[in-house]
This record gives sequence, structure tokens and C-alpha cells, in this order.
Amino acid sequence: MSSTPDVQPADCADALQALRDEAPLVQCLTNVVVTQWTANVLLAAGAAPAMVDNPEESGPFAAIAGGVLINLGTPYAETVLAMERAVTSATQAGTPWVLDPVAAGALAWRTDIAGKLLAQSPTVLRGNASEVMALTGGAGGKGVESVDTPEAALAAARVLADTHGTVVAVSGPVDHLTDGDRVVRVGNGHPLLTRVTGVGCALGALMAGFAAVVDDPLVAAVAATALLTVCADSAAAGSRGPGSFAVALLDELSGITPTDLATRVLLS
Amino acid sequence: MSSTPDVQPADCADALQALRDEAPLVQCLTNVVVTQWTANVLLAAGAAPAMVDNPEESGPFAAIAGGVLINLGTPYAETVLAMERAVTSATQAGTPWVLDPVAAGALAWRTDIAGKLLAQSPTVLRGNASEVMALTGGAGGKGVESVDTPEAALAAARVLADTHGTVVAVSGPVDHLTDGDRVVRVGNGHPLLTRVTGVGCALGALMAGFAAVVDDPLVAAVAATALLTVCADSAAAGSRGPGSFAVALLDELSGITPTDLATRVLLS
Amino acid sequence: MSSTPDVQPADCADALQALRDEAPLVQCLTNVVVTQWTANVLLAAGAAPAMVDNPEESGPFAAIAGGVLINLGTPYAETVLAMERAVTSATQAGTPWVLDPVAAGALAWRTDIAGKLLAQSPTVLRGNASEVMALTGGAGGKGVESVDTPEAALAAARVLADTHGTVVAVSGPVDHLTDGDRVVRVGNGHPLLTRVTGVGCALGALMAGFAAVVDDPLVAAVAATALLTVCADSAAAGSRGPGSFAVALLDELSGITPTDLATRVLLS
Repeated sequence: MSSTPDVQPADCADALQALRDEAPLVQCLTNVVVTQWTANVLLAAGAAPAMVDNPEESGPFAAIAGGVLINLGTPYAETVLAMERAVTSATQAGTPWVLDPVAAGALAWRTDIAGKLLAQSPTVLRGNASEVMALTGGAGGKGVESVDTPEAALAAARVLADTHGTVVAVSGPVDHLTDGDRVVRVGNGHPLLTRVTGVGCALGALMAGFAAVVDDPLVAAVAATALLTVCADSAAAGSRGPGSFAVALLDELSGITPTDLATRVLLS
Repeated sequence: MSSTPDVQPADCADALQALRDEAPLVQCLTNVVVTQWTANVLLAAGAAPAMVDNPEESGPFAAIAGGVLINLGTPYAETVLAMERAVTSATQAGTPWVLDPVAAGALAWRTDIAGKLLAQSPTVLRGNASEVMALTGGAGGKGVESVDTPEAALAAARVLADTHGTVVAVSGPVDHLTDGDRVVRVGNGHPLLTRVTGVGCALGALMAGFAAVVDDPLVAAVAATALLTVCADSAAAGSRGPGSFAVALLDELSGITPTDLATRVLLS
Repeated sequence: MSSTPDVQPADCADALQALRDEAPLVQCLTNVVVTQWTANVLLAAGAAPAMVDNPEESGPFAAIAGGVLINLGTPYAETVLAMERAVTSATQAGTPWVLDPVAAGALAWRTDIAGKLLAQSPTVLRGNASEVMALTGGAGGKGVESVDTPEAALAAARVLADTHGTVVAVSGPVDHLTDGDRVVRVGNGHPLLTRVTGVGCALGALMAGFAAVVDDPLVAAVAATALLTVCADSAAAGSRGPGSFAVALLDELSGITPTDLATRVLLS
């Protein structure tokens, strides 16, 4: 890795400005736990969420959306079918899409689904270390939580990136992101992020939003990570616990300027 | 339009008092993004939410509920069947019901569903300008957001109101509501309302609640709009962004008195 | 009832310490209104939520989870099947599970489902007075709200506890909990708890979490009730309404110490 990170703070600032200017339509096929939170995170950041996740409409909508999120947190037969159709349509239309294989490795059915979706080359694959390692045949985590570290998952992430032509983003105390060639680490974030459900899921949605307005998927994934974790830093500073933290995080996502983001993000 | 609005501030105050006194049971068949938010808005305002949206129970429950909300934000085959049964039962029992045709015009499947439900004469049809115009054959919006203005949709709203015997409520910076004959405008509200998901959806639920306790559906729809937008004004005043705004909005809905509402609502 | 309660404040403190130490995996098959809230309550308290509620995965996961919640708030054909499989698996594996028969008595379909699940002897049955009475053949409540008092339901609760070998927890202004022999009352709580959706649902989830780390199910159910209601007392003290109360409740659940809990809980 060079001493200058492959993605610069100014790239994050430009990406945020583009997100605000274009307000991309982000189609979310996500789990039932985090739908409201995900939509509110996207709205606060400046994107336009649309939770179109039925099999009748997911395909046509993926062709007109700016970006698509596929999150496997609570898969059902009907929504999995909707996901397959959305991915096919997004691929045909050139719409960037993000795969979040929640709890892959811990549960056989969704691990199989995640593998099939991954084979269709998502623009970005986002997960914790256990989920990413499971997709290369690792052991998987405990439910939705990771038992591995992002550092340990980096080799697996590089393999997946090379094999599938995807950017792989591994969440953790330090986030690691790679396109197989370049590697970027984001050092912001706060332990309270693990005490609010759906933060990782919302990060995947933000990546789909940034991928809609930025050409380089690695920059999109880094910018989304930077935005969420930098805002978490300031939200945590004024919080009394996870309840007030989550509220403040939405306020920060709305209020942060591109310049703030570039000044405060820790890239390496 | 006369210089005196067809619905008066005192009507809104009386409606809120009735809502608090009767705590009507509001059955919500709504989208998976806004269920919690909608229930909390109803509880804060003084109504009793019940999210009974499966095909086995939706019909029987619509016969005993005070009001029913049908919201097409995330339709699935099973919930659409539940909606059809709820509407049939509500119509037979005389239970008022509200149709919120989210993203009608933007997506073919739900536009067709919305048209069929509209043909059954909802007590109130609530949507943004694009959704309302789409139901008269207009072009539709971008996802769930409106690209048209309420003023432009008013002619369409009058036609729909006359055709279906329904009150039509068009949301926007100024809300326009009509029963085909009378037209009422509500001038309260704040841009932060567009940065929190599900505000419009919750407004539909409030309309179902007010329709349960007020005879005139236009008064019910105006009172719901007045309550939500007046509370938004005060919630926004003390907020740092969309997160704290949404929290404060629930507090305001709970704390506002009928007199406050009548004093602050801007009707024309 | 003896003058010394059958569960002591120190038992609640020990249970909370165990929850924090072990962070049990709590599988929730719950309603679509409260998924996010339930997960956030569990995370704030110190448990690890996992909303695995599809028929393909619910059984295998119940065998590895620490505790399982079955909540009938919004049952659908597919999730009911998932519940049945989870219960069968939990029973075989010895995983404690909690049944929350939301609106039993008010709606025929779910009342039948609740009866069949109850026959499989949940570790804890949690409901309001109307729901508990309905399961012994009582009349049932108005939607999801109780029209009966916990005191009136205590006799029914004892019968259910004896018949099914389950702990029965009846929520209300004073919570009553019994294993058929012992009876414990928890006197904490605040009226604002009834103005936020899903508080009772989250209480069921907490009971599943405590049952994962405490041998005596009555202690587990009492500790969960104590934790939620004691935190509600302090959350209400600093709140302006139901919005800020819900936020503060999450903060309190995260910040309370076992010693605080033992000092403040009102057991009799």
C-alpha cells in the first residue's frame, strides 16, 4: 500500500456533493428490521429511498433506479424472487447494485442465495468479516455478528474482488475496502454503531446511493463509509446512549458539509 | 372559493377532542417501511393503531375497526388480497377507509391495484400531486416523490372526487383538499417533513382515525392535515435535523391541545 | 403470598449481569411493526438480536439461539409456518421460548394459532390481561389493547401456568407473574409505556434473552419486566412526550447497572 491512500478525502467530499445535487433514487430490497431506518438514513444524507421489493415491480424499477441494494437480513421466498429479478434487471440496465449478505455462513439457505447473487458480480459486496470470509468458504459468524476481524478478512476480500469484479467492503472497527488491487482503510467510527440495529444495512444503502452518482465503485463505497462513520463520531460525542445516538446520527448525516467530511475522514 | 374557508379552525379543534375522547381503533394495512412510525403517530395523537394486514383477519377486523388505512407503499400478493378483503368488509360495514396510492403512476402493477381500489369509493384518497394525477391518467412521479404541484393536481382531484364520491387530499407545501365541491387549503408544514420517511403515510392513518370520529370526511381529512402540519411547525423549531425532528413531532402530537390547533392552523 | 417476594431484587441484578456477560443470541419471530424497536431494545440491554423468521431457517436457528420469541402481532401464512418450526426445534434443543399472543381473543385465526402454540408449553407466556384470559376461553380485548386488569387475569394465569407448565406474565399498571405456585408483582412503570408501540413486544423479547442466561424462568420473566419498567421510570422523568420517552428508554436500558436495578425495582 502506498503512503498516499488510493481514495482521497477530496474524493469523499466530491461524492457527497454529487449525492446532494442529484438525490439519486435508491431501490432497497432489504430486511424488515431496518426498512424505516434505512430510508431515514438515505433521506438524511440526501438520497431518495424507494423500497420496491415485490416480484412484480422489482425488475422494472431496478432499470430506472440510480442504485439498488440487495440485503439478505430477512429473506422470504417472495422477496428472494424479487431480488433475483432486480439483479437481472440492474445488470441489463447498467444500474449499480450492492449485495449485503447478512449472516451468510451462519445459515445455509441464505448462504446459498448469497453465493448465487455474488456470482452475478455486484458493484459492491458489503459485509462484516465473518460474512465475507463465509463467501469464500469460511466458517461464518454468530448470527448477524462477526467473530472475525476485517484485517483477517482482507485476503478473502481480495479474492472475491478479483473473482467477481466487485468492490468488497469489510466493516469493523477499521473498515477495509478493496477492488482487488487498491486497498483503502477508513478509521472513523464509534462502538455505539454496534448498539443500534441496521447501521451496517444502512451503510449498504448509502453505497448504492453513492454508486449512482460516482463512476469509481471503490470511491463510492469509501465515501459512504466515510460519511456514516464520521457522522457517528460527532453523534456519539453528544449522546447519552444508543437511543439518542441514533437520533443524532440522522441529524449529523443531514447537517454535515462536504468540506467537514474531507477534513475529518481518516483514510489510509 | 369563498373568503371564509369551508372548514374552520374550530372544526379541527372539535375533531381532535373527539379523537382524544374516543381513541378510535385504526386498522392499518400499510407498507413495511412505516409500520412502527405510523403506529407511534396514531398513539401520540390519541388513536389506537392495529396493524391487521393478513388475508385471514383483515376482513373481519375492518368490520369492527373505527377506520381503515390502505397504503400501497410495499404491496405483496398476500397483503393486496388482505386489502381487497378489508375494503369489501369496510364498505359493507360502513367503516370509513382511506386509500394512499403510494407511487401510483411510477409502477404499473400498483397503479392497476390503486385504480381498482379507487373504484370502490374510499372515504378519502390521499396522495401527492403526481399520484393523484396518475389516477386520472397522468404521467406519475419519480418513485415515491412528486414531480407535480398540488395546485396543478387540484383539477384532477376534483374530477376524482366527483367520480368516486371521495374526498381527495393532495399533499405538498400547501395541502389542497376537496370533496369535489368545497376546497380547503392548509398552509402549515415544514420542509423537514420531506426528510423523514412515512410522514405522508402517517397522515393517511390519521385521516382514517379522524374519519372514525367525525361525520364529514372533508373535516376529518383537514383536521388530520392540520394536526400533523401544525405539530411539524413547532417540532421543526427545536430540531437539529430530521432525527430530532421526528422525535419532537411525536412529542408535539401528544402534547398539543385542541385550542392550540385551532389557534395555529392556517386554513384558506 | 408471603411478605417476602418469591423473586428478590438481587435476583434481578444477577440476571442483568448475566445478560451483559453472555450477550445471548435472541431469535425473534415477531410482528412487522416492532422489529426495529425490538432489536434496539435487545441491543441496548446487552443481548444479541437475530430476526430469523422464514420457514427455511427458523428451525435450525432455534437450535443454536439462546432464546426464541414468538410474537403473533402480524401473522402471515409463511411466518406462522416459520414459528411452528422454530417451536418444534426449540423444544427439541431445550432452547427456552416465549409466546406473546398479541390480540388473542379479538381475532379468531390468531387465537387458534396461539392456542396451538400454547399447547407446546412455552417457557414463558406474556400478554395483557385480555389476551391471557382469552386463552382460557375469555372474551378478549379491543384490538391489541386490554380491557381487563392484571388482577382479574391472575386466576386465569395460574390455570394456564399449571396446565402448560409455563410461567405466565400479565402486563398492566402492576405486572403480575406466576409459575402457578409463586406469584410476583412488579410495581414500576409509567403510563407513557402505553403510548409507544411495541413496548410489550420488546418485553417478550427481553424475557427470551433473560431465559437464555437464567435457569428459573420466573426469575427471567421478572428480571425482564423489572429492567424495562425501572428504565421507563427514569426515561419518563426526562421526557417531553412519547417520542423523547422512547429514545430515553433505549439510553436507560443501556446505562442502567445491576445495582441500580436492584435498588429501584418494586417487587411484591
